[in-house]
Amino acid sequence: MEREKIKKLLEDVKTGKIGVSDALRVLKSLPYDDFGFAKIDTHRDLRKGFPEVIFCKGKTLEQITKIVERLSSRNEFIMATKADREIYESIRNIREDAIYYETAGIVSIGQRERKKTTKTVLIVSAGTSDMPIAEEAAVTAEILGNAVERLYDVGVAGVHRLFYNKEKLFNSNVIVVVAGMEGALASLVGGLVDKPVIAVPTSVGYGASFEGLAALLTMLNSCAPGVVVVNIDNGFGAGYFAGIINQMEVNE
Amino acid sequence: MEREKIKKLLEDVKTGKIGVSDALRVLKSLPYDDFGFAKIDTHRDLRKGFPEVIFCKGKTLEQITKIVERLSSRNEFIMATKADREIYESIRNIREDAIYYETAGIVSIGQRERKKTTKTVLIVSAGTSDMPIAEEAAVTAEILGNAVERLYDVGVAGVHRLFYNKEKLFNSNVIVVVAGMEGALASLVGGLVDKPVIAVPTSVGYGASFEGLAALLTMLNSCAPGVVVVNIDNGFGAGYFAGIINQMEVNE
Amino acid sequence: MEREKIKKLLEDVKTGKIGVSDALRVLKSLPYDDFGFAKIDTHRDLRKGFPEVIFCKGKTLEQITKIVERLSSRNEFIMATKADREIYESIRNIREDAIYYETAGIVSIGQRERKKTTKTVLIVSAGTSDMPIAEEAAVTAEILGNAVERLYDVGVAGVHRLFYNKEKLFNSNVIVVVAGMEGALASLVGGLVDKPVIAVPTSVGYGASFEGLAALLTMLNSCAPGVVVVNIDNGFGAGYFAGIINQMEVNE
Amino acid sequence: MEREKIKKLLEDVKTGKIGVSDALRVLKSLPYDDFGFAKIDTHRDLRKGFPEVIFCKGKTLEQITKIVERLSSRNEFIMATKADREIYESIRNIREDAIYYETAGIVSIGQRERKKTTKTVLIVSAGTSDMPIAEEAAVTAEILGNAVERLYDVGVAGVHRLFYNKEKLFNSNVIVVVAGMEGALASLVGGLVDKPVIAVPTSVGYGASFEGLAALLTMLNSCAPGVVVVNIDNGFGAGYFAGIINQMEVNE
Amino acid sequence: MEREKIKKLLEDVKTGKIGVSDALRVLKSLPYDDFGFAKIDTHRDLRKGFPEVIFCKGKTLEQITKIVERLSSRNEFIMATKADREIYESIRNIREDAIYYETAGIVSIGQRERKKTTKTVLIVSAGTSDMPIAEEAAVTAEILGNAVERLYDVGVAGVHRLFYNKEKLFNSNVIVVVAGMEGALASLVGGLVDKPVIAVPTSVGYGASFEGLAALLTMLNSCAPGVVVVNIDNGFGAGYFAGIINQMEVNE
Amino acid sequence: MEREKIKKLLEDVKTGKIGVSDALRVLKSLPYDDFGFAKIDTHRDLRKGFPEVIFCKGKTLEQITKIVERLSSRNEFIMATKADREIYESIRNIREDAIYYETAGIVSIGQRERKKTTKTVLIVSAGTSDMPIAEEAAVTAEILGNAVERLYDVGVAGVHRLFYNKEKLFNSNVIVVVAGMEGALASLVGGLVDKPVIAVPTSVGYGASFEGLAALLTMLNSCAPGVVVVNIDNGFGAGYFAGIINQMEVNE
Amino acid sequence: MEREKIKKLLEDVKTGKIGVSDALRVLKSLPYDDFGFAKIDTHRDLRKGFPEVIFCKGKTLEQITKIVERLSSRNEFIMATKADREIYESIRNIREDAIYYETAGIVSIGQRERKKTTKTVLIVSAGTSDMPIAEEAAVTAEILGNAVERLYDVGVAGVHRLFYNKEKLFNSNVIVVVAGMEGALASLVGGLVDKPVIAVPTSVGYGASFEGLAALLTMLNSCAPGVVVVNIDNGFGAGYFAGIINQMEVNE
Amino acid sequence: MEREKIKKLLEDVKTGKIGVSDALRVLKSLPYDDFGFAKIDTHRDLRKGFPEVIFCKGKTLEQITKIVERLSSRNEFIMATKADREIYESIRNIREDAIYYETAGIVSIGQRERKKTTKTVLIVSAGTSDMPIAEEAAVTAEILGNAVERLYDVGVAGVHRLFYNKEKLFNSNVIVVVAGMEGALASLVGGLVDKPVIAVPTSVGYGASFEGLAALLTMLNSCAPGVVVVNIDNGFGAGYFAGIINQMEVNE
Repeated sequence: MEREKIKKLLEDVKTGKIGVSDALRVLKSLPYDDFGFAKIDTHRDLRKGFPEVIFCKGKTLEQITKIVERLSSRNEFIMATKADREIYESIRNIREDAIYYETAGIVSIGQRERKKTTKTVLIVSAGTSDMPIAEEAAVTAEILGNAVERLYDVGVAGVHRLFYNKEKLFNSNVIVVVAGMEGALASLVGGLVDKPVIAVPTSVGYGASFEGLAALLTMLNSCAPGVVVVNIDNGFGAGYFAGIINQMEVNE
Repeated sequence: MEREKIKKLLEDVKTGKIGVSDALRVLKSLPYDDFGFAKIDTHRDLRKGFPEVIFCKGKTLEQITKIVERLSSRNEFIMATKADREIYESIRNIREDAIYYETAGIVSIGQRERKKTTKTVLIVSAGTSDMPIAEEAAVTAEILGNAVERLYDVGVAGVHRLFYNKEKLFNSNVIVVVAGMEGALASLVGGLVDKPVIAVPTSVGYGASFEGLAALLTMLNSCAPGVVVVNIDNGFGAGYFAGIINQMEVNE
Repeated sequence: MEREKIKKLLEDVKTGKIGVSDALRVLKSLPYDDFGFAKIDTHRDLRKGFPEVIFCKGKTLEQITKIVERLSSRNEFIMATKADREIYESIRNIREDAIYYETAGIVSIGQRERKKTTKTVLIVSAGTSDMPIAEEAAVTAEILGNAVERLYDVGVAGVHRLFYNKEKLFNSNVIVVVAGMEGALASLVGGLVDKPVIAVPTSVGYGASFEGLAALLTMLNSCAPGVVVVNIDNGFGAGYFAGIINQMEVNE
Repeated sequence: MEREKIKKLLEDVKTGKIGVSDALRVLKSLPYDDFGFAKIDTHRDLRKGFPEVIFCKGKTLEQITKIVERLSSRNEFIMATKADREIYESIRNIREDAIYYETAGIVSIGQRERKKTTKTVLIVSAGTSDMPIAEEAAVTAEILGNAVERLYDVGVAGVHRLFYNKEKLFNSNVIVVVAGMEGALASLVGGLVDKPVIAVPTSVGYGASFEGLAALLTMLNSCAPGVVVVNIDNGFGAGYFAGIINQMEVNE
Repeated sequence: MEREKIKKLLEDVKTGKIGVSDALRVLKSLPYDDFGFAKIDTHRDLRKGFPEVIFCKGKTLEQITKIVERLSSRNEFIMATKADREIYESIRNIREDAIYYETAGIVSIGQRERKKTTKTVLIVSAGTSDMPIAEEAAVTAEILGNAVERLYDVGVAGVHRLFYNKEKLFNSNVIVVVAGMEGALASLVGGLVDKPVIAVPTSVGYGASFEGLAALLTMLNSCAPGVVVVNIDNGFGAGYFAGIINQMEVNE
Repeated sequence: MEREKIKKLLEDVKTGKIGVSDALRVLKSLPYDDFGFAKIDTHRDLRKGFPEVIFCKGKTLEQITKIVERLSSRNEFIMATKADREIYESIRNIREDAIYYETAGIVSIGQRERKKTTKTVLIVSAGTSDMPIAEEAAVTAEILGNAVERLYDVGVAGVHRLFYNKEKLFNSNVIVVVAGMEGALASLVGGLVDKPVIAVPTSVGYGASFEGLAALLTMLNSCAPGVVVVNIDNGFGAGYFAGIINQMEVNE
Repeated sequence: MEREKIKKLLEDVKTGKIGVSDALRVLKSLPYDDFGFAKIDTHRDLRKGFPEVIFCKGKTLEQITKIVERLSSRNEFIMATKADREIYESIRNIREDAIYYETAGIVSIGQRERKKTTKTVLIVSAGTSDMPIAEEAAVTAEILGNAVERLYDVGVAGVHRLFYNKEKLFNSNVIVVVAGMEGALASLVGGLVDKPVIAVPTSVGYGASFEGLAALLTMLNSCAPGVVVVNIDNGFGAGYFAGIINQMEVNE
Repeated sequence: MEREKIKKLLEDVKTGKIGVSDALRVLKSLPYDDFGFAKIDTHRDLRKGFPEVIFCKGKTLEQITKIVERLSSRNEFIMATKADREIYESIRNIREDAIYYETAGIVSIGQRERKKTTKTVLIVSAGTSDMPIAEEAAVTAEILGNAVERLYDVGVAGVHRLFYNKEKLFNSNVIVVVAGMEGALASLVGGLVDKPVIAVPTSVGYGASFEGLAALLTMLNSCAPGVVVVNIDNGFGAGYFAGIINQMEVNE
């Protein structure tokens, strides 16, 4: 934190230890955000506990372990997504306290200070194959300190299961809908409730599902106005977004 | 019909009026379907009353009127789709008995012999803007002799209206679902009933609806197994298909 | 069935065992479909024998066997699609009576009560490579209780084979056309007969077939009005749809 | 409201005015949501003041005025989006109190009971051409009762304007980013702040912007985890979503 | 032709009128194709009568007339495609002998020396709306000196008309198939005959025809090996290609 | 051949062995092509030597060997494309005389009666990676009896190699251009010569080549009028088409 | 410029006019770029003469004139692209010295201080219809102070014209290639020279040119390594980029 | 070089050793570029040191080693891109002096004569996964003789790292931005500096990144005018282009 450094500088100016033009030169050489962007950091409370989420896809095992080692010395809490068991085991070699959420593909290290929320994020998923992404969203929201409910396998073809569990829909505060071929599920949930609905298309499916494109388009075209969309298979993004808006009232 | 002509030929062979090799040559020059494909025609009972459906889009007014004039001398019943009022008026100049279904964009001439069906085809549509295509389907099915029910404006955002009208869903025999942005509606209806559902995506919408592509993909990806799809805006095709399967038991 | 429970409640109200406002509270807490949606179930006769079709693609072996175990205790008949031999063998470990249709990729367990139909569903396929999807459609329709005819390898390049077998076309009641690169086959069949034609594009092909997209578009654009389309490689959906409309007259 | 009707029925059962089986029959014929879905309505507080948002695109002037007339007798507040001046004038003929937000393309009728929020929704837009969609979002959020700030014309090419106005970013509670070609703006804002960001791609642009598709994809692929996306040009959806999450703490 | 000029140069070298190094410099400054590419021109016999085909789309009336004026002084024969009546009339103001083929959208000026071919190019088209492109192909082939037969309106939905006219198929030497939605027609024709088939997708159609894309893909995926494809609506290209291969035997 | 059978029938009618109506019934049950489509076969001279080209992609080894066994008993010449070494070895187990063109991926069995042509088909390819498809085209044309020249590795980045070999371009009769990323090569060749050019896009490439789509579009948009296109990677189709038009003058 | 303000502040600290913590608060509220990003501005020399390029597409006439009025008071030089004559005339009402480059669709106001370059930017275009975009690039580069040569109408179909003008290719320093259907031209030019080539796809064309997409893909897939690409129809971007790299040596 | 040969020919004409017509024939048979295109080679100084860059993707190990062997005898410097370790080892067997840049996937052989530049090319990359492509660009530019700076892992989600390193941005002469999902980074860099920016989309990412398409479109739509784009994953092309423009002032 550079605040003390600048204060010291000003005091030195005051006491004459440093001249005005020298002080001016020092000020201009400081990193930009000691000044203008200072607020970024104060607004970054939340992210401070989330400083580096490692997206494992496309990274080599070696790159991942290097990043974990570097972060490990600095941070209290580290999280890795899209992590398979091999990645988990490499990380555990560095940090024994690493926890693996296998279905979610998430590794977490250390303990994040949890905020208290009594309100729940509900994760709804259409099919069994959508579960990994649904769990990625659920675990992410939990790590952020949210109470999470799950309502899985309630795709439109088995829509009666959704109706049987309507209490869960009505009792939640924020809803994440995860669906591949059943992209219609997000529209349906959005048509039944007035909660914010975050829709996650998944790449599950075949044929004209085009690796999640069909579900993505369906969700974007939902006529229910409380529905927003994240990228295909982006369970983390949905869980994160749901988590921060679920905590909006708590944060103040 | 060439049947008589061939019979006559065989009789001439019998009576020696014509030699065997001459008869052989005549036989080979006959239109193919007097023989092999004769069955096509006997199976075409239905289409006989539907012999030339004029698809007006992409045709000039002059081309349309010429086709009507030509068909007019041959057929009892003529039908034109995607017809605007100007087309209708040109046709009426030729045939005074032309009827215009304005919302459906259909012109019909002459009376088609109607089959009797007590069972109904239900046309469900999502939004007000889908109505022209829904009407195209409805009028087509009616012209084929089917009883038709309409259930309009029951998109997913207003899904409660669908539930209020569930009797219509359960009492119908075949269902056509017409939806643009609300492509999800076909999945939902297919998940609630065990009737054959014919889904018609419409080009209504904006943004990532991509002129009906989003609805088309949603409908193709429906997990409800009783749902099939026709081309974007093809209300005629859906009404025709619904009509012929609704009459399957009556035809025998 | 909750009918008795509600009747009992009303009787308790009558006899004063329970007060009106308490009864009102109980009524509101009942599952929705004891009332409004009761009819769904009575209309679900057909699906009752088809209660859970397990779509194996995207599911782990462990998930599939868990689902089979759960269903096994409840249902008389279970069916799994897109199942390879390994899946079949895992299922057979649970249920010895499992039958494997290898080309179709279907596993069935138990006996479904068959409806009697004398009319046939004809499955037409274009090429040798389309056979797995064609068989998926054929076996599905047979399991539903339909008589099924097969007419394979009659692609447009070998269109004379189609003409040699025209009797099969004319004698069937419903036709499923399965084709990858030869998407044109659905149009051709639809132009020759007046039967309902369900077209299944397959992902067979290369280059600009774009994993079935070309065949899908061809089929959607068919000008023959009796043609509808299901998703790429969705043999099950086509067989199911063909099966239920083939039985429409029997059901009454 | 059917609550009284059911209470009356139970009382009649109690007093013997109606028999148990007759009561049972009456109960089953009631609309489903008097029971099971009653909760929907109690949860619909918010939407009650937003009961019918008329999406004008694709509707005829005649259809729009009919809808307004019908709603006018029932509701206190009506809103129409994507409305041009001609539509506004037709509506004003029915309701003199109609207000037209011209840039936003929104017509509103009647007064909505406003919730009090001291927190602001910030609407950020990239270019002059994105303004209609940005205004659609802004006006929608205002109508919902939110304080709204605007920060327009801060596209990436003029990114210094964004930095000059960073206070607005940091002081807002929820941010809507509206951008056509400059889809990158949503990523940038999402990278600077920890607020929920709702991104709206617009169809503004040319060439490989493909009517908003490029911006849509950019926004979906944002690596900043607090960014969600709505359909191309869906300013209403973004304003609505931003509005309801901005009011989450107020609602309790 | 520079041949004489170079010969003269060599003779001047021989006679000493010009020095070797001067001759070398002259040689290097000559247009490249006097030497290396001379053969291009001798092979360009055909094109010589086709030196500048003016593609009118995207050109202003002013640009077109300027090109015609410039060519008019140099060539015996000029041809313009995608020309509407207004373009024709502007051209006729410059050259009175301009001929307008209205349906084909072709203007021709001057007389091309025709080659004699007894063999015919057959132009097959699917629907009435495909006629302008079919005529563009037909007129182009005729202008090249080919005998042309037409077989129009034989789309797959009316496939019996194709069979009735099979003699035309069998008697032609090269076939052009023009089809929009009915892209399947090219496959069918290619499956019936062993002639070279040039397929022209047209932008006629609606919905999932995607401005000719569906027909294009269908044609590219034709399994009949004698089928090649040109660009959507490129009647000129197809007629030109058909024309030159129809004349291959005549050229020697 | 049914000709004798019909003649016999007519003679039996003449001699009274069979009645007219019985003869009529027999005639109608005959295969269609004994009559109408007889001509197909007589026109199929060429294809007779090419009766079944086995496209191996998507077929199991078992299916391929079964087809070879069935054809082996009937035909003199068999050809299989997209065949890897394993397929070749399976075929050689059935037919010892099978020949394997490894780069081309073609297996041929038996000797095809070759037509004599002195004119050559030139196969031009852009890059080393395009060679398998180029060879598929070359070997196919050779098997059809054409003299074939090869001009490989003359992509646009090394366009000077094309110019050094211009004699090959000018001396050929028909040209096939095979190119992946270098789709531009077809346009360039088409701009230099007046021969028919058949362009084959290949799926070679990366990034925005999109598995051959870029090359396909480039080739379709070629402004040189003598260029036609086949499907991506369809070397066989191009070689076949080039082969038959190269033999057009010989066939007469 | 805030430098003086900060210096004053430091002096006030020195003299005790302001306390340290008050000074600290003032410092933090200053615009960020007085410090960290000051350098941006000193590096923006070039852009200073190009401060606001008005992209007219998608802006109303009213918006454009307002922007011109605002800029007019501040800047010496203003430029508007994609401007039609109506826009030009509105601008001329504000600034009499506005100049209109009609083909380029560019309006310029005021005089830009020109840099001296003796090297030329060459603008190559394929067809007559590409001229507006080619001129947009040419005029932009000229306004930046570059010498510009034009070589138009040298598409691949007329590739000999390119060869005849090879001197222009070899004598230029930077080349811009503008082409619609003839996307191949960029590859060809890139294959002939070692200059930096900036390729501009245009939306000119029809059919499978898909509004410039085909040309864009062709250009991206060019195997000549010195070719880069800008957006479809982005003549301004290409001219700007060509201009700044052409001046790189002059700038030092 | 053929210059001497032609001079000799002219001298022989002069001395009568060869007749004029014989000389003419010889002249016409010479390679074209001895004359017209001689200049290509003299302009190819640069490429001479870069004569054959082997793009390894899609080539067999055998093909690659053959090309290296052939080039090895002719050139001083050889370079291979997209080369894995196996390829490197095969090349090292031929040339012991081969150097492997593993992350970049580049093999180089021999020493290229380096030009001296004091100005730097800056390679900016968004994420760890983009590093191979970034290194491909960096190593290519270095091999061309440029000073190269790297600034990696500064994606928009971690945009503060970009700001902390702004000196690198301002001190470079040309910038290459490599980004997958973070396509926005190119726009941002282009908005901060006035240097030429070459953007390289990478295929890194998932979901709606569509193998780099999203990043490609974002980059093409950048509103910052100094940004151009190369193909997805084309690190070599970007490094080459950046390298040649960075050396433009040195070349003179």
